[in-house]
Amino acid sequence: MPAFQRPTEATLSTAIRALQARFGNRTVTSEAVRRQHAHTLTWIPNEPPDVVVFAETVDDCVDVMRIAATHGVPVIPFGTGSSLEGHVNAPFGGISVDTSSMKAIIAVHAEDLDVVVEPGVTRKQLNEHLRDMGLFFPIDPGADASIGGMAATRASGTNAVRYGTMRDNVVALQVVLPSGEVIETGRRARKSSAGYDLTRLFVGSEGTLGIITRITLRLHGIPEAISAATCSFPTVRAAADATILAIQTGIPLARIELLDEVQVRAVNAYSKLTLPESPLLLVEFHGTEAGVAEQVERFRAISDDCGGGDFQWAARAEDRTRLWQARHDAYWAAMALKPGAKGQSSDVCVPLSRLADCIDETKRDIEATGLVAPIVGHVGDGNFHVLPLMDETDPEDVARCKAFMGRIVERALAMGGTCTGEHGIGQGKMAYMRAEHGDAALALMAGLKQAVDPQGIMNPGKVIG
Amino acid sequence: MPAFQRPTEATLSTAIRALQARFGNRTVTSEAVRRQHAHTLTWIPNEPPDVVVFAETVDDCVDVMRIAATHGVPVIPFGTGSSLEGHVNAPFGGISVDTSSMKAIIAVHAEDLDVVVEPGVTRKQLNEHLRDMGLFFPIDPGADASIGGMAATRASGTNAVRYGTMRDNVVALQVVLPSGEVIETGRRARKSSAGYDLTRLFVGSEGTLGIITRITLRLHGIPEAISAATCSFPTVRAAADATILAIQTGIPLARIELLDEVQVRAVNAYSKLTLPESPLLLVEFHGTEAGVAEQVERFRAISDDCGGGDFQWAARAEDRTRLWQARHDAYWAAMALKPGAKGQSSDVCVPLSRLADCIDETKRDIEATGLVAPIVGHVGDGNFHVLPLMDETDPEDVARCKAFMGRIVERALAMGGTCTGEHGIGQGKMAYMRAEHGDAALALMAGLKQAVDPQGIMNPGKVIG
Repeated sequence: MPAFQRPTEATLSTAIRALQARFGNRTVTSEAVRRQHAHTLTWIPNEPPDVVVFAETVDDCVDVMRIAATHGVPVIPFGTGSSLEGHVNAPFGGISVDTSSMKAIIAVHAEDLDVVVEPGVTRKQLNEHLRDMGLFFPIDPGADASIGGMAATRASGTNAVRYGTMRDNVVALQVVLPSGEVIETGRRARKSSAGYDLTRLFVGSEGTLGIITRITLRLHGIPEAISAATCSFPTVRAAADATILAIQTGIPLARIELLDEVQVRAVNAYSKLTLPESPLLLVEFHGTEAGVAEQVERFRAISDDCGGGDFQWAARAEDRTRLWQARHDAYWAAMALKPGAKGQSSDVCVPLSRLADCIDETKRDIEATGLVAPIVGHVGDGNFHVLPLMDETDPEDVARCKAFMGRIVERALAMGGTCTGEHGIGQGKMAYMRAEHGDAALALMAGLKQAVDPQGIMNPGKVIG
Repeated sequence: MPAFQRPTEATLSTAIRALQARFGNRTVTSEAVRRQHAHTLTWIPNEPPDVVVFAETVDDCVDVMRIAATHGVPVIPFGTGSSLEGHVNAPFGGISVDTSSMKAIIAVHAEDLDVVVEPGVTRKQLNEHLRDMGLFFPIDPGADASIGGMAATRASGTNAVRYGTMRDNVVALQVVLPSGEVIETGRRARKSSAGYDLTRLFVGSEGTLGIITRITLRLHGIPEAISAATCSFPTVRAAADATILAIQTGIPLARIELLDEVQVRAVNAYSKLTLPESPLLLVEFHGTEAGVAEQVERFRAISDDCGGGDFQWAARAEDRTRLWQARHDAYWAAMALKPGAKGQSSDVCVPLSRLADCIDETKRDIEATGLVAPIVGHVGDGNFHVLPLMDETDPEDVARCKAFMGRIVERALAMGGTCTGEHGIGQGKMAYMRAEHGDAALALMAGLKQAVDPQGIMNPGKVIG
């Protein structure tokens, strides 16, 4: 595929005038707003779009797309800006379509266990809306991300080990195609064999194929009983081994999260907790009262065999919330370990049987390289994050951190894993696509992109070259 | 997309000579074999390919594809021929690639709960291989279908309510593209956000995008306890209501199957059983001993509320096998109700809240139309099959049955459902694709097909026009 070219300034000006004529003061070109819409949280540089349009309806998105297509100008869908691989950057300029005010929860079908939402609805907003109906949406990437963004990046997070990822929990999408046409990718039936799986084509397409304007999600009943605990282990390998055994023996854990001793120290300092500063598993059990008791008993036996310590229970809802909030703040806690540093979270995912090896080798690499790099992991999925803290002003540190990040991916790929379990490719992981997929599969992806977006205006410079 | 044209006889002869040169006596042109490879089981007419090639390796598939592409001749992948919508027919002639001797179970990764198989492995063969390891592959469409065919049609069946469909249980595929290139669609990690979901693109593509030559499947541990029972209900609606309540309250049923009174009579006669001849649910519970006991108790309370009768337990493995064999033989039992008749199984799937309405209206339609048309259903998914038995020699009966089948689909679509829950589109459901997906989504599917298979040689005349 030919590389996308930045439109000329004249073309951009014409497009912006057309947007202003249509959207009035919802067309914003101030630098602060543009930079905010290219915020990356990480060491990926900020590349602002030329203009931000605040969309409020599907028709708004259609009109942005039509104007963009007329002028050949890039379109970058924007949810909350919590992605981690430069997804919302605008390396070729263009229009950021901010869908964050499309926040309607259109319909809750409690009997069918599904809900239809606009893309700017966030997961916390959704769960607050659902709570009184006894329902919840389980996918929880930590950040209060938008549902549109979560679908676009195939997000998952702490609950995926039990409830699956966005791949499994998106029932159907409404999408504005680059042509300006609006499609529905599926219906509300729980399964279908009617043609190509358009839903799964758009889930994880990171804004490169269209603008997601409506999402139908699968819901779950709030479990009758929920129990959460922490348990310390002498080594990261021991904790990983306990995880692997629990999954292999079929304990239906709702969450099983690993924090290494560096991350525990960071969390204690940041969230004012007093967790023992050795490798830690945070586990959560969902089910009936009797079912949870049985799961706990079985997990405890495994944990004991692997050298785990006593369980510290968080029985009350507020204690659980505090515990999980601390887990969700792990990123910020880690960043606070080295003030002024920039971070970048690795996101490899390996087959479960290789998880302990992969983490072990990575720990040795951290030690040998002399980095500050805490580890947290959705270990039930074989997915873990390492966050090396980099001093951007020190070229040596930059080179060291980037080389280390490359080695993590190479290690995971060599073990049959993937370069990203849940963050997506964006700009940050593009370099690994060929190694992971091979030339022919990558060419196939490029062919699909070309078929859906022949002008190449959807989020250019992401996912595929 | 322009309609595919049947190649000229001269072109076909040249292609067949090239196949003979490469494959010798694994190239078969006898009419009996060709007709067998277009067997439809249903009232869809047999349209044999021009030649059948018995592939034994990936390289065989690559060479078939290269020869086909050189001459512009259709390629129709063939597993066991148990599909129901004319998937293996050759309306434009061409080459049937029989993968049924590609039966290697390449690797079982017990620790990772996955297995890598060739496409000709059947689900029974796989489960026999796995049993001693305490593992099983849950997807069970009834027929002893090939795993390649099941992936190609996005099959599901009786266990999908608990374990999902082929969409959820295929981890990765190896595919020979129409270009002759071989790709791997993914890796063995449990999740990934690395680019477009090529796996899900090929799952359900019904042989129209490439030949599936290797499949990595997710496995599950054989449950510690399994319990199955039958329970009779006064009406189909009462049985459907019990199902809906059970799903809504989150009972993790492994199977919940409905047979209406007509189907029960058919099954009793065919499988020599003595089930009470009223609407029946067959349910199966998987879990720990205590967990199963709890599920049973909860389901019994719901069943009682809905007017269900006593549970008849099939506690021993052989009784369960007998019961499920009878369920799996439902198609043949139904066919035996009207000897000489041809059948065609409907396959609509609707949101659970509309299931009772949809079945009820369909029952009234059967009565008003005066058909013999038993109903069986994977009701936990909102999916059910109606099998009107048609006298092919009676044009009026033919018209009546076909009109009835059309009404079932219209009814399901009007209720937010799909024309096919698990059988796929093939030839039989193509007429409904526009109504189900709309023009723009259908055009998008055609664009994807064009991108992957620009010559249009992969299974032409199926799925999309």
